[in-house]
Amino acid sequence: MRVFNFSAGPAVLPEEVLTQAQDEMLDWHGSGMSVMELSHRGPQFANIVARAEADLRELLAIPQSYRVLFMQGGALAENAIVPLNLLRGRTVADYVDTGSWSQKSIREAQRYCEARVIASSAASGYTHIPPQDEWQMSAAAAYLHLCTNETIGGLEYHWLPELEGGVPLVADMSSHLLSRPVPIERFGLIYAGAQKNIGPSGLTLVIVREDLLGGAHPLCPSAFDYQVVADHGSLFNTPPTYAIYIAGLVFEWLKRQALPGRTPLQTMEARNIEKSELLYGTLDASGWYRTVVEKADRSRMNVPFFLGDDALDGVFLKGAEERGLVQLRGHKSVGGMRASIYNAMPRAGVVALVDYLTEFERQYG
Amino acid sequence: MRVFNFSAGPAVLPEEVLTQAQDEMLDWHGSGMSVMELSHRGPQFANIVARAEADLRELLAIPQSYRVLFMQGGALAENAIVPLNLLRGRTVADYVDTGSWSQKSIREAQRYCEARVIASSAASGYTHIPPQDEWQMSAAAAYLHLCTNETIGGLEYHWLPELEGGVPLVADMSSHLLSRPVPIERFGLIYAGAQKNIGPSGLTLVIVREDLLGGAHPLCPSAFDYQVVADHGSLFNTPPTYAIYIAGLVFEWLKRQALPGRTPLQTMEARNIEKSELLYGTLDASGWYRTVVEKADRSRMNVPFFLGDDALDGVFLKGAEERGLVQLRGHKSVGGMRASIYNAMPRAGVVALVDYLTEFERQYG
Repeated sequence: MRVFNFSAGPAVLPEEVLTQAQDEMLDWHGSGMSVMELSHRGPQFANIVARAEADLRELLAIPQSYRVLFMQGGALAENAIVPLNLLRGRTVADYVDTGSWSQKSIREAQRYCEARVIASSAASGYTHIPPQDEWQMSAAAAYLHLCTNETIGGLEYHWLPELEGGVPLVADMSSHLLSRPVPIERFGLIYAGAQKNIGPSGLTLVIVREDLLGGAHPLCPSAFDYQVVADHGSLFNTPPTYAIYIAGLVFEWLKRQALPGRTPLQTMEARNIEKSELLYGTLDASGWYRTVVEKADRSRMNVPFFLGDDALDGVFLKGAEERGLVQLRGHKSVGGMRASIYNAMPRAGVVALVDYLTEFERQYG
Repeated sequence: MRVFNFSAGPAVLPEEVLTQAQDEMLDWHGSGMSVMELSHRGPQFANIVARAEADLRELLAIPQSYRVLFMQGGALAENAIVPLNLLRGRTVADYVDTGSWSQKSIREAQRYCEARVIASSAASGYTHIPPQDEWQMSAAAAYLHLCTNETIGGLEYHWLPELEGGVPLVADMSSHLLSRPVPIERFGLIYAGAQKNIGPSGLTLVIVREDLLGGAHPLCPSAFDYQVVADHGSLFNTPPTYAIYIAGLVFEWLKRQALPGRTPLQTMEARNIEKSELLYGTLDASGWYRTVVEKADRSRMNVPFFLGDDALDGVFLKGAEERGLVQLRGHKSVGGMRASIYNAMPRAGVVALVDYLTEFERQYG
């Protein structure tokens, strides 16, 4: 019945998580209620949110000096909420432009400050990430913003910049948070819409260093003031309780994946390397399929590719669907195909895709 | 297994809705995917959101000149989003203060404008709604704001004001939208957090007259600019897809409730009148239980009451839980008990509560 779902997000979730949610739908842990029906102020939900935060802290080794916030509005809302909170009277913020999602962040930030594009790979069509020695950093920047995985273009940072002068590093990690270990202490703030590796849409994770709280612009809505959200343990406004519950189940699932001698995220990283190498390897070995991102900057999560003949896109997608390989159409701004292979995409899904790619090329290539 | 859940929100949902969600959890309509896994840009979710909007429009008889927006952040976020969108250069907005939720709206609005309290029942301890002849309306007000059902205090407007001079009427209807017919055309804007009569938390409904779009403050985040949200059919940022799906199932459930010759909301209103009269009648008939809200302004949704002896609160709550009557503790700012009896609370739940009230009074009163 189930298909292999390559959607960029909302995206595939672990089947074990969905099965558990199904089992508990009408009666969570003997409460006689669905999680959706629990008061966010009651002891049961308090337990759910506390466990979710504790598990996330464990998974990402989040230092105590960082706060975890469960927010709403996704990365697009954070694109405004970040400058509203972090400018703290400054008028400049630095942005590295590596594609569609960086651009969205830049456009929104420009409404609040001088959002300086200190490096961009636009000229090359976003096929690489500009190396740090090309970045023209501003002395007065309130923060430096990266999108560390470009969901649409399929680029991923496999390195992190060294920042001087205490400028906080801010990252939109929506589409690869939890896919690999992250040195949280290198960042001032990380945000991520949940609908890739975390859980359902409608939940945004924010991980923020405590000293960055408390400087919100006077016109920042209270519900999006990091200090207010932190002071209320993410319960200033009613949080998306069911989405937090599902995210918590995903965190538990991640913890169960750990191989001996490895952390859960080291395990996921190894799996994601293997899955992405299998897919990129097949595409590279073919003379017919085409990818455009430089190898060093390829995303392990989002793999855009093109057929040798665009006119066959429809045939390819139809054949894929017949095999239960769905949501492979590329983003409209890029065209072609895109396979998103998040944590919850089993290796078997990538194998099935690779088999189909090989067979399709043999028939049509 | 299931209990009667009197939570003020997140609150009880129709069991039929939860059962359907459970059935469809791993495979929505033969897609091989959970609704949580569907791309918000794909045809399947487009179908879900279109049907949800169409059903909501039908249920509330929303005129074509109004837009329906599926947003995030709840009523507390809207308390900022409303002035950010509706002030349109004006500096004054009128607010009627009828309790905790009005006060939250007022406090937040004061960050954006002169939020004038044109009437308040604070002096009487919020036991009534100030009649319109006491309201001191401002000539220059950008809008006039009401909370038409005070979830904590248990007050509900059973009438609507007549406004002159075209001042838009704005209402926080979080805790009673869909519990009765509403003349939408009397309002400029209605907002409601979903977690009472609509669906899970994390979804906010906004119904706004088209001529009020397009005037957002330059610092309003794009994701909360009504014009932007409307232009993108609520898909500017990734919406809370699963919450919209559940709300859609609730709308379908409401449509199935209609009695012959009545609309769904006329049917719900009659049921809600009957349920609330049963509960208030029992409380009134007792010389021991106490309510404080004036009869004409009592909420049909949220019924706060006090035992004759506060020292018995713990005994009462424990006995209630043993009978499967849960989440009856009053809000901490009010004390005592509160029974929230939304659409999804069956009459049998109110009967069970009333039986318990009678028995408890007999034993302890």
